[in-house]
Amino acid sequence: MNPYPKPMGKLIGELSKLPGIGPKTARRLSFYILGQPKNDVKNLADALIEAREKINYCSNCNHLTEGETCTFCQSEERDRTSICVVESPRDVVAMEKTGEYNGLYHVLHGAISPMDGIGPDEIKIRSLIPRLEKDKVKEVIVATDPNAEGDATAMYLAKLIKPLGVKVTRIAHGIPVGGDLEYADEVTLSKALEGRREL
Amino acid sequence: MNPYPKPMGKLIGELSKLPGIGPKTARRLSFYILGQPKNDVKNLADALIEAREKINYCSNCNHLTEGETCTFCQSEERDRTSICVVESPRDVVAMEKTGEYNGLYHVLHGAISPMDGIGPDEIKIRSLIPRLEKDKVKEVIVATDPNAEGDATAMYLAKLIKPLGVKVTRIAHGIPVGGDLEYADEVTLSKALEGRREL
Repeated sequence: MNPYPKPMGKLIGELSKLPGIGPKTARRLSFYILGQPKNDVKNLADALIEAREKINYCSNCNHLTEGETCTFCQSEERDRTSICVVESPRDVVAMEKTGEYNGLYHVLHGAISPMDGIGPDEIKIRSLIPRLEKDKVKEVIVATDPNAEGDATAMYLAKLIKPLGVKVTRIAHGIPVGGDLEYADEVTLSKALEGRREL
Repeated sequence: MNPYPKPMGKLIGELSKLPGIGPKTARRLSFYILGQPKNDVKNLADALIEAREKINYCSNCNHLTEGETCTFCQSEERDRTSICVVESPRDVVAMEKTGEYNGLYHVLHGAISPMDGIGPDEIKIRSLIPRLEKDKVKEVIVATDPNAEGDATAMYLAKLIKPLGVKVTRIAHGIPVGGDLEYADEVTLSKALEGRREL
């Protein structure tokens, strides 16, 4: 005998589809939702629909936006001569949290990965080139992930952009702040050694 | 500078209100939702609204239901002479999973807890009494949680119901199956000893 009314089973099913939410968590959330004021549940449902309907990608840098271009590309306060290339909108959020960067972004929506059949044309690399000329960009900071795909993408970008007379830099690999030398893996440690700087 | 478009910030805010979902998980879920087909997001939003709007409590046993009474109370196959008293609809689900119980339920929506100012009248105890007579109930199985509040509720129910000539039983406390004697706490172990049965 099904212990739940049908709409409850449906809600559990829908919630279980979300990443990191298994059937037990979905059940717990569903019971919680049943106990909330109707208005609060409506707000959540509306926020879901609204976010999905209204958010697009910026026509300039491919970051998330409500309008045609994103807040960064529209801003007069950002330094337009510097572009930070990242793999996803999440990485823009991470970079912004540092509070140390004041340029624009370019979101690739992926990284080059020949193993998965993802070449330069499968991600948003081409649209970066016209931006370099238009905004007289001086430096492209490649902040793709520090793994094989991210590094391959960085190499590709360097080869593509350097001939255009634009400086291309890569964010530093090394020991994380607060990390423990003893527990660092050897690849990270050799990268940290290689990137050492005079004090 | 706000790195998200407004509807995204709103969605993260709404998701963070759910239990066990912090700002980081809310952000991860939001990014996931943005990448899903519009129809899938609508299904989730609809399931939320529908569950909250359509689900009520059974007028007989207080379990969740879409109609006036729940599937258990409506069923002709369940043994109406046995009522299992539980604290919440979640407990009904747990009991049903055993596949060992075929009677009806009574959901208290809480347990007696004088410390929190919850007396017998703050939970759904009164409505149990007329059910005993109506369905000629032979046994009330008290399956409240095995803690101070659950035990107090069980004692209260026993005092209330026994004089009416109805058998009142309590589910057994003991070592969980697959548990390790060595790691069992002493209260559980003494309960297990007290409840020993001849082989």
